[in-house]
Amino acid sequence: MRTRIEHDLIGDKEISNACYYGVQTARAMENFHITGVTLGSFPTFIESIAKVKKAAALANFELELLAENKKNAIVQACEAIIAGKFHDQFVVDMIQGGAGTSTNMNANEVIANIGLEILGHQKGEYIYLHPNNDVNLSQSTNDAYPTALRVALYEKLGELGESMAIIKNSFAKKASEFKDVIKMGRTQLQDAVPMTLEQEFRTYAVMIGEDIQRVHEARQLVREINMGATAIGTGINAHPDYAKTVEDKLQEVTGRPFITAGDLIEATQDTGAYVQISGVLKRVATKMSKICNDLRLLSSGPRTGFGEINLPAMQPGSSIMPGKVNPVIPEVVNQVCFQVIGTDIAVTMACEAGQLQLNVFEPLIAYNLFNSVNMMKNAFEALAYTCVDGITANKEHCKNLVLNSIGLVTALNPYLGYENSTIVAKEALETGGSVYDIVLAKGLLAKEELDEIIKPENMIQPHNFGLSEKNKFEKL
Amino acid sequence: MRTRIEHDLIGDKEISNACYYGVQTARAMENFHITGVTLGSFPTFIESIAKVKKAAALANFELELLAENKKNAIVQACEAIIAGKFHDQFVVDMIQGGAGTSTNMNANEVIANIGLEILGHQKGEYIYLHPNNDVNLSQSTNDAYPTALRVALYEKLGELGESMAIIKNSFAKKASEFKDVIKMGRTQLQDAVPMTLEQEFRTYAVMIGEDIQRVHEARQLVREINMGATAIGTGINAHPDYAKTVEDKLQEVTGRPFITAGDLIEATQDTGAYVQISGVLKRVATKMSKICNDLRLLSSGPRTGFGEINLPAMQPGSSIMPGKVNPVIPEVVNQVCFQVIGTDIAVTMACEAGQLQLNVFEPLIAYNLFNSVNMMKNAFEALAYTCVDGITANKEHCKNLVLNSIGLVTALNPYLGYENSTIVAKEALETGGSVYDIVLAKGLLAKEELDEIIKPENMIQPHNFGLSEKNKFEKL
Amino acid sequence: MRTRIEHDLIGDKEISNACYYGVQTARAMENFHITGVTLGSFPTFIESIAKVKKAAALANFELELLAENKKNAIVQACEAIIAGKFHDQFVVDMIQGGAGTSTNMNANEVIANIGLEILGHQKGEYIYLHPNNDVNLSQSTNDAYPTALRVALYEKLGELGESMAIIKNSFAKKASEFKDVIKMGRTQLQDAVPMTLEQEFRTYAVMIGEDIQRVHEARQLVREINMGATAIGTGINAHPDYAKTVEDKLQEVTGRPFITAGDLIEATQDTGAYVQISGVLKRVATKMSKICNDLRLLSSGPRTGFGEINLPAMQPGSSIMPGKVNPVIPEVVNQVCFQVIGTDIAVTMACEAGQLQLNVFEPLIAYNLFNSVNMMKNAFEALAYTCVDGITANKEHCKNLVLNSIGLVTALNPYLGYENSTIVAKEALETGGSVYDIVLAKGLLAKEELDEIIKPENMIQPHNFGLSEKNKFEKL
Amino acid sequence: MRTRIEHDLIGDKEISNACYYGVQTARAMENFHITGVTLGSFPTFIESIAKVKKAAALANFELELLAENKKNAIVQACEAIIAGKFHDQFVVDMIQGGAGTSTNMNANEVIANIGLEILGHQKGEYIYLHPNNDVNLSQSTNDAYPTALRVALYEKLGELGESMAIIKNSFAKKASEFKDVIKMGRTQLQDAVPMTLEQEFRTYAVMIGEDIQRVHEARQLVREINMGATAIGTGINAHPDYAKTVEDKLQEVTGRPFITAGDLIEATQDTGAYVQISGVLKRVATKMSKICNDLRLLSSGPRTGFGEINLPAMQPGSSIMPGKVNPVIPEVVNQVCFQVIGTDIAVTMACEAGQLQLNVFEPLIAYNLFNSVNMMKNAFEALAYTCVDGITANKEHCKNLVLNSIGLVTALNPYLGYENSTIVAKEALETGGSVYDIVLAKGLLAKEELDEIIKPENMIQPHNFGLSEKNKFEKL
Repeated sequence: MRTRIEHDLIGDKEISNACYYGVQTARAMENFHITGVTLGSFPTFIESIAKVKKAAALANFELELLAENKKNAIVQACEAIIAGKFHDQFVVDMIQGGAGTSTNMNANEVIANIGLEILGHQKGEYIYLHPNNDVNLSQSTNDAYPTALRVALYEKLGELGESMAIIKNSFAKKASEFKDVIKMGRTQLQDAVPMTLEQEFRTYAVMIGEDIQRVHEARQLVREINMGATAIGTGINAHPDYAKTVEDKLQEVTGRPFITAGDLIEATQDTGAYVQISGVLKRVATKMSKICNDLRLLSSGPRTGFGEINLPAMQPGSSIMPGKVNPVIPEVVNQVCFQVIGTDIAVTMACEAGQLQLNVFEPLIAYNLFNSVNMMKNAFEALAYTCVDGITANKEHCKNLVLNSIGLVTALNPYLGYENSTIVAKEALETGGSVYDIVLAKGLLAKEELDEIIKPENMIQPHNFGLSEKNKFEKL
Repeated sequence: MRTRIEHDLIGDKEISNACYYGVQTARAMENFHITGVTLGSFPTFIESIAKVKKAAALANFELELLAENKKNAIVQACEAIIAGKFHDQFVVDMIQGGAGTSTNMNANEVIANIGLEILGHQKGEYIYLHPNNDVNLSQSTNDAYPTALRVALYEKLGELGESMAIIKNSFAKKASEFKDVIKMGRTQLQDAVPMTLEQEFRTYAVMIGEDIQRVHEARQLVREINMGATAIGTGINAHPDYAKTVEDKLQEVTGRPFITAGDLIEATQDTGAYVQISGVLKRVATKMSKICNDLRLLSSGPRTGFGEINLPAMQPGSSIMPGKVNPVIPEVVNQVCFQVIGTDIAVTMACEAGQLQLNVFEPLIAYNLFNSVNMMKNAFEALAYTCVDGITANKEHCKNLVLNSIGLVTALNPYLGYENSTIVAKEALETGGSVYDIVLAKGLLAKEELDEIIKPENMIQPHNFGLSEKNKFEKL
Repeated sequence: MRTRIEHDLIGDKEISNACYYGVQTARAMENFHITGVTLGSFPTFIESIAKVKKAAALANFELELLAENKKNAIVQACEAIIAGKFHDQFVVDMIQGGAGTSTNMNANEVIANIGLEILGHQKGEYIYLHPNNDVNLSQSTNDAYPTALRVALYEKLGELGESMAIIKNSFAKKASEFKDVIKMGRTQLQDAVPMTLEQEFRTYAVMIGEDIQRVHEARQLVREINMGATAIGTGINAHPDYAKTVEDKLQEVTGRPFITAGDLIEATQDTGAYVQISGVLKRVATKMSKICNDLRLLSSGPRTGFGEINLPAMQPGSSIMPGKVNPVIPEVVNQVCFQVIGTDIAVTMACEAGQLQLNVFEPLIAYNLFNSVNMMKNAFEALAYTCVDGITANKEHCKNLVLNSIGLVTALNPYLGYENSTIVAKEALETGGSVYDIVLAKGLLAKEELDEIIKPENMIQPHNFGLSEKNKFEKL
Repeated sequence: MRTRIEHDLIGDKEISNACYYGVQTARAMENFHITGVTLGSFPTFIESIAKVKKAAALANFELELLAENKKNAIVQACEAIIAGKFHDQFVVDMIQGGAGTSTNMNANEVIANIGLEILGHQKGEYIYLHPNNDVNLSQSTNDAYPTALRVALYEKLGELGESMAIIKNSFAKKASEFKDVIKMGRTQLQDAVPMTLEQEFRTYAVMIGEDIQRVHEARQLVREINMGATAIGTGINAHPDYAKTVEDKLQEVTGRPFITAGDLIEATQDTGAYVQISGVLKRVATKMSKICNDLRLLSSGPRTGFGEINLPAMQPGSSIMPGKVNPVIPEVVNQVCFQVIGTDIAVTMACEAGQLQLNVFEPLIAYNLFNSVNMMKNAFEALAYTCVDGITANKEHCKNLVLNSIGLVTALNPYLGYENSTIVAKEALETGGSVYDIVLAKGLLAKEELDEIIKPENMIQPHNFGLSEKNKFEKL
């Protein structure tokens, strides 16, 4: 037989016998042609659903709600899914109505049919193992789906943290390499005061390090699960010991410290953790975009820009301009960051639009959070391996910019006072002369004094300059 | 031979001889692993690039810049692409650095290699037909890529308009069906005054009709192309007659009224049209989301909600609650709308981040605009065919809500005055009584008068009520 | 008597006799302490409400719904408000619940009390002129408030267009001044090909010119009003001829081409025009921010940046760095642009959240649109007068950058072919040599040929270079 | 003398002798006419700047960089400002270019001039106490401004937490009051399963409680300050012990646990804390908006909506519909939430746009964060005091909806199985009959069994239903 007939609230439907999914999944495939991107593109999510279903079966068995043979069949089916053998059976579009019911039923049906075969039955003979009564026992979409989402997000945020550590380390390593490169710092794109290129790159490592910490904290928010909530959090149809039991089982199955929310009604409708995670991803994106903007600025040129650093050439930069090389890796990272920032709004609106006892828009939230994490992982690793690791510095050019700079005058401020220093700066700007020469020409400081003050090591860190009140208020 | 060696600025690279794309495409594949979604997912865009390349070859030939045999080879290659034979050769990730250079070179290389085979040469023998010197002749990524984007957007916005017309017509047809359903209008979720369900549904048709007009206007913005701009809009390396010639050729090839921008430097860096189109898509999404919110409200129930209309049941609504049916189609449309609104921010940031003579972030813009249009098309047609077309009204329930409503008192306002009417309304609210009975009991109006005033046909449209000054200021 | 007692649905309330507003305004003042910013900060909006009320009174009189003495009193009161005499009586917070009812009643009460004094009565003696029955006759908040909003937006968008014309003209004038400044164009912050500073600045003028056109188009959208809609658009309690009559009167009163919407039910709930206007303001902001980013880049320095132009010094740039001058005007414009882009999301969410027959969130929409227009006007005029008008060019520096640039090689592309040109570019980059010298040293072109090709007038516009096939494929 | 002449980099300027601010402030007033909202509207920010300046003076004195009389004058001046005596002297527009330099100089000048008078000198005699050399000693705008911003945010976030506790408590108190109100829960606006109104309201309290925790965590992020960073974080012109000393002094002056950042260069350019705080405010707004949406839904009616609860009537709801009362308080809270969500994008863009060693857009960040916190505080307290505290329940109506509901069938699921229950539900829906009657009529359960199952206490919490396998698979 090539097909079987399945039945639901809507009526009968023919299902190919090749399919492990059943009637409800088939309806969802017809109903939701939106992105063309199915659950199958997010293997961690599939595996997480299977882990949740496995944990539920173990709990139901322990509470004597599920027969042993059924439990075994479900557990084995889940393990096969976790092993990656049935990813192609998760066919519903990621953006779907129904709060994830279609995804949950997709899982229930696939598990039931795998289980039925394990038990020696035909697919569709649900009387022996039922998608709702057995696989979904003690559960609702409204607890199983968000719990699976959280199990998956916990993994993905962990992976993101690892990718961030990679790019952080690239910056840190490069910083050490640039210890001796003295250069001008800039504020508001205007020449400010000297620093080292090490300091500039170390900053990026520190910055990313802080964001790793924030991602780690956000990750804790998804440890809280709502298994046992069933339909709206009141636990209708759940055994009084079920929530605690399934919490234990899920910890076992995943090896992760998931805990039951303190208030299951609240946990079932509250999407605060998602909007906060999305906000933290936005934070990470905002700052990584800033870093990429800086890399593009610092490597602008080769002849008419800042030209302080060189990014590795990854590909020809132009179909018409021979020899042009572009900062393509930072550019693609920028775009990923914009996308993460934009889709945060989609997540936010989805969260805001939840009504009463449920947020029906969790599928969109899931879709965007997974996409954002995946794109960031890809982009950050590319940034590390194909850009930052290969950056070189134009040390002489950097040094010349410092020597030629008016910004040196800031270092004289404690000796000459703000107003006298302003006069020197203004003259340098107007005449094109150097601060060094003007200060000497005006006899404001002795050569040795001046040389001491503008030694790099004195300008790039705090320094006990001694208060020279005498100079400060002598008008030039 | 299974592979060939190609060469670019970076060095040599081995390319499988099965591939029509060449070295620059291969580099881009290595550089950009971001979304996993390639140009291949957007066939209209591929075809548009081929149309642009074909038009350029025709123009170059007419200006005697390109030999006839090369022209013929390019044109034939483009036609094969337009016919869909080489979509799998467009392999670069949609989100890419380099302002689309990789996509443009992907096209140049594929066309060159198809053309080489047509000319009887081997792939890679670019001395006979060169991706840059011939296929890209008189062009730069910076004019060819955005022009192709605009050619594609013109088509996609046309398709979107058609999908919007479908859902508009569904609402209009349904409105006519609901001519005799009298119901309460609501403002701020509070009972307001009576209307017909026809009026309510007609509104949606009118609303969408206006948005079709706005999409049509926005579509005109992408008619403006910048072919002839080359690298930065100055037209370096382009023949003085090229811009005009290629405009004519593109009109011929596409059958669409594309015109050369008035200022090519401006047109090359200005992404205003994209941000405006994205803003218009956001407008459409905002309103369609509102409509779906309304459908979900009006069909809330079945027993504890508004219950005025019934959406067709598309799938079982719950894995735990038997018989539950959810408004899954409006729910998925809502999510698409949130996504469109969110990605508008990504488009906006990409546009804002353009620098000097180019916006390097056009690939992200393209990705989001295409995705938004595609998702909306899918969602709107689903809304029409699987939701609106099957809506039924609960006519009696609607009518009873009107009769039972305090909102009737508004119709008495011209006869009793605002303050007296307020007193009647307050009493109805507090006692649970009906406005009708209270007005009669208080002797404020004769029964015939009252019956006349609250006839549906008098309440659902303007009405010459006559000014009854006498009643207005008599305190109850 | 220092106070009077007024009464409403909620009960009695004491009102200071100094106040022209009444009980409903007083309640709104207590209910809405949100921003502290009242209608009084937006005089154009106050005046627009008065114009709407005046037009309504004239229409009601013409339709014999309002006695002549009442009409005269209302008209005179409105004219006094339009003349600016009662702005301090508009005291409700701009962000308010109730869809603008409090603002509408504020106007109704102030007009009634001014009118009562004109008629020789005391404030509060509403039996002679009633805020609801007379001033609000044939109206609802739901038509009067949005109509007033549209009347005001029409004016404000006109003003915005004028400010945009100012900054456009500043760029155009400056462009003409920079006719002879040859400089390098840049794409992706990398040296591209030469252009003039005139071309660069002309682009900004053209870009703003297009945006003026878009603002003008968006302005047309608010010409459509919904007077006659009353509560939900059905026109309940309105005379059949009222909509047409009040349209005529409003045209007379304002001198502007306002027209009645084709479907009043739709027009009453549809906020599409606002979301589109907000989207167009976002477009304007996006591009003006890009322009300011460019100005800050081009003026970066003075010694370590691009240094091509100088912005006028407006104030000392640092409390610690003497002589530092910052691009403070572009910086403040950037911030205004970010704010406009951000609040577009607030407007969008407000529009999306409308339900059934009304959008209750119009006050937030009004607040943001007015703020955005006002801030942009201020910012754009500051940009023109205190920044662009005073910009000077560093002509020699710009020219030297061109001569020193590798980008010249692009101009050789048609003569040498893409691959040979790439070799020249690569050698220049690696050796630090000039393209000019390398081409001559290699004997690729004769000196006269080369000089001809790189003449500025040949590089900054299309040029008939002639196809020199012979050179193209001779490998170096 | 009515005026004095002051001097800066730009030249001389006449300043009224009534003003404590000086030339740089006056220039900023001319340069920045943007919002009309000055620092004066944010007293906590003014006070925080004064605290920072006081701490700096104490540290400078301790390190023997500042004479005792000058220290005393500065400290006294700061204390006068903290006491609120000079708020009107803080006159620069909140949205300003220059990274806050104008605000910092405004403070430096006001403090210097107050100090000069304390020392017995005239305003403007900066030789005795200088705004830059003395008041700003060891500081830059780039450390003093963000530190003041953080000191102020720390206070404001504390205040926000208190307002959130108020509204949390209102919900908790109300929940206890609604212990005995049994009602239907709803998912996707469709009838789900029973719960109590206590559970529904308790959820809001729990939800807000979690958000209080998130705000508390976000508040910790602003404890990190960058005093000692000076211009770009390298500490140029600062004494090696200054950072530590000023940290101690700031803790003393504020009584708050501020700590010096681990890397001052990073801390000077990193705006991650702001974007995260803004993201957390967005989270709070998202959920409070959801709560207000729920309140508006639950109180919809009075006759044609859900009608489960009544919000207190705060003002008449309509200028045309007598007796109408609207949920104006939730409506205004919704709008505040939309505004917070929208301006988060402005904050994000401002953060993203920072370049190299500084983020020049901090003034916009400050403006939005302060506004968001202030508006939320106002809105949340209004929601507590003028809405939630006065809510009443329609207990009988709620109970009737449960009894009449099809959702009861879910409770039968464990006894009848999903498929049989579906059949019952479908019949109830189609016939309009009750689940109770149908189950009995079909003989599926005995009356006592059924009565036991649907006891409220069994439906609103987990329940050991016992597995009744026998029933589950008997087809009806």
